Amino acid sequence: MMGKSRLEAFSDGVIAIIITIMVLELRVPGSGSNWQALSPLVPVFLSYVLSFVYLGIYWNNHHHMAHTIGRVTGAMLWANLHLLFWLSLFPAATAWMDTTHFAAVPVGVYGGVLLMAAVAYWILQQIIIRSQGRHSVLGRAIGRDWKGKASPLLYLLAIGLCGRWPRAALGVYAFVALIWLVPDRRIERALASVAD
Amino acid sequence: MMGKSRLEAFSDGVIAIIITIMVLELRVPGSGSNWQALSPLVPVFLSYVLSFVYLGIYWNNHHHMAHTIGRVTGAMLWANLHLLFWLSLFPAATAWMDTTHFAAVPVGVYGGVLLMAAVAYWILQQIIIRSQGRHSVLGRAIGRDWKGKASPLLYLLAIGLCGRWPRAALGVYAFVALIWLVPDRRIERALASVAD
Amino acid sequence: MMGKSRLEAFSDGVIAIIITIMVLELRVPGSGSNWQALSPLVPVFLSYVLSFVYLGIYWNNHHHMAHTIGRVTGAMLWANLHLLFWLSLFPAATAWMDTTHFAAVPVGVYGGVLLMAAVAYWILQQIIIRSQGRHSVLGRAIGRDWKGKASPLLYLLAIGLCGRWPRAALGVYAFVALIWLVPDRRIERALASVAD
Amino acid sequence: MMGKSRLEAFSDGVIAIIITIMVLELRVPGSGSNWQALSPLVPVFLSYVLSFVYLGIYWNNHHHMAHTIGRVTGAMLWANLHLLFWLSLFPAATAWMDTTHFAAVPVGVYGGVLLMAAVAYWILQQIIIRSQGRHSVLGRAIGRDWKGKASPLLYLLAIGLCGRWPRAALGVYAFVALIWLVPDRRIERALASVAD
Repeated sequence: MMGKSRLEAFSDGVIAIIITIMVLELRVPGSGSNWQALSPLVPVFLSYVLSFVYLGIYWNNHHHMAHTIGRVTGAMLWANLHLLFWLSLFPAATAWMDTTHFAAVPVGVYGGVLLMAAVAYWILQQIIIRSQGRHSVLGRAIGRDWKGKASPLLYLLAIGLCGRWPRAALGVYAFVALIWLVPDRRIERALASVAD
Repeated sequence: MMGKSRLEAFSDGVIAIIITIMVLELRVPGSGSNWQALSPLVPVFLSYVLSFVYLGIYWNNHHHMAHTIGRVTGAMLWANLHLLFWLSLFPAATAWMDTTHFAAVPVGVYGGVLLMAAVAYWILQQIIIRSQGRHSVLGRAIGRDWKGKASPLLYLLAIGLCGRWPRAALGVYAFVALIWLVPDRRIERALASVAD
Repeated sequence: MMGKSRLEAFSDGVIAIIITIMVLELRVPGSGSNWQALSPLVPVFLSYVLSFVYLGIYWNNHHHMAHTIGRVTGAMLWANLHLLFWLSLFPAATAWMDTTHFAAVPVGVYGGVLLMAAVAYWILQQIIIRSQGRHSVLGRAIGRDWKGKASPLLYLLAIGLCGRWPRAALGVYAFVALIWLVPDRRIERALASVAD
Repeated sequence: MMGKSRLEAFSDGVIAIIITIMVLELRVPGSGSNWQALSPLVPVFLSYVLSFVYLGIYWNNHHHMAHTIGRVTGAMLWANLHLLFWLSLFPAATAWMDTTHFAAVPVGVYGGVLLMAAVAYWILQQIIIRSQGRHSVLGRAIGRDWKGKASPLLYLLAIGLCGRWPRAALGVYAFVALIWLVPDRRIERALASVAD
């Protein structure tokens, strides 16, 4: 009954703004005008790239998932807002890592935000699958969903590592981003087979 | 004559930006990197959650209400901008509560913004209902609209409580959010009965 | 050949962000938590209302004008970007008036931005009218366009008043906003007569 | 299979926000209220105009290019995000030039961002052309693409000039903007010939 275009448009808007707000952190401190002035920006830049890639992954997969929605329900609207809530914490979590030079607690909090966003995405996915009944396109598309199941475990592992090795935790976050970088071709394939 | 897609898109854009601008408040002060550094953020975080939920409620109900619009009139455009104006004051009102540790006047001003947004929503709703004539889909959908009528009274009650018990006022704001959290199923149902 | 939906969507996005960025000025200074702390905000609030109303007028009239566009040309895209450029200076011009307590030069600069936005709107309007040929819907709709012709003259008058009476200039700005507040019913009417 | 409307809408959103975030730099420093107070803003204003024009060019050409897309692939989504990434660095690069009064390194970094954005645009263009097969509309439209080939060379030349003559480098950036200001009529023409 409800179209999904507004759900898509609103999510696009919020994710676009979250991505762009992070850029506000990329300020060269003081009035230095040489290459040395840029050096404190290097970790800030790298953490911006990491968060940008994560938000890009969420946007891409959201794009594919929303494509399978038939009728938008109230539960979907709220599950989607719940996902956007956790994504909206990326800029603050990224900024705290930056200003503390990637100390243990901030890196762990960043991992907690990643974890909660993954949980929120999973909840939204389940609500969509249930609404589609037994022969759910999305349900078949994600199949056993090993990426969706492995990611939260890897985040938990990384959070456990933070106390001693925050840099190792960051490595795990980057690794999870890499395994997701391939967009959800499973859904593309399943949709293609429906179209045939 | 005018399509409603731009009214929806513009409202989505403004609400998406308002939600995301509030995130700019979520900054860990100083250079602390432990859990104690997060403790002053707890009330800021809770007030962010409250305002996020309120904006989510307005977005959801706006989504449902706009769905019933046939033809966009000039009066609707301005009633909608009027609603967006009051919603745009959420970040400033939330920030003032935060920096004053939820003192009486700022909590009352926040309630005033909630009240004016509710009034603006009611005006927009009335204009849409009138434009639909006697057998208004929206008019039937909202029915006796007890939520819409109780909310302003509860906000007024909360504003009255602020002088002595600002925390009780916050409790009332949270309570009103809870009774609205269920999206407007009345409209969904009325639309469904029309479709049949 | 090109659809106008992206031109509309992009303009909506930019105007939505400009409106919302102005809210960032609405910060209660210091840590005051009583009504007196709000008093320095009163002029800031009033100038926010004025700029919000102006941007609302531009958005509404843009909405009506874009409705008459058939085919988007390169010239329209650039004339539209030119309009958005001057609108994007509203937050900076408003903020300068605020911090200088409405001194002569800042009030005059604000008027200059209003003037340039009006000129940019007129250019966009002319380009659309020319693209529609002799029986232009928009051309007939705006008719003699007395509002469009009077506004720049009133802005020039107000800028002239700034040196001695900046408050009188503000009064003129508010007056021009008032005569525009009624959305462009001329276009609505002309479109309706075409539809008949 | 996937519609291109979300790719367009998301790109519009990000570019709209990037353009508007740059406005946050346009702040009159201190509390000066006369014309002299504006003089330090002149170079800031000019660099804002330059970056605004560049983002306008990218938006316009993106508009034309996206028009030729038939089916959105995962590779396109990521090539598009890659382009948006480099565009998102415009505000930070512009701000660094401003605060250092256009010193050698910041002007060179700005050129590097221009170069990377051009490369990202070229990659996206190639991916779209390949997806369209031998008789690609976009491929025919851009033809020999001399602008697309000359721009990176001119950026490299300008970066080389920065060490000694940063102002000459800025002149080259402005010159490249000028040769692009004409929107991609080649694509308009090719699409028109297809429509015939």
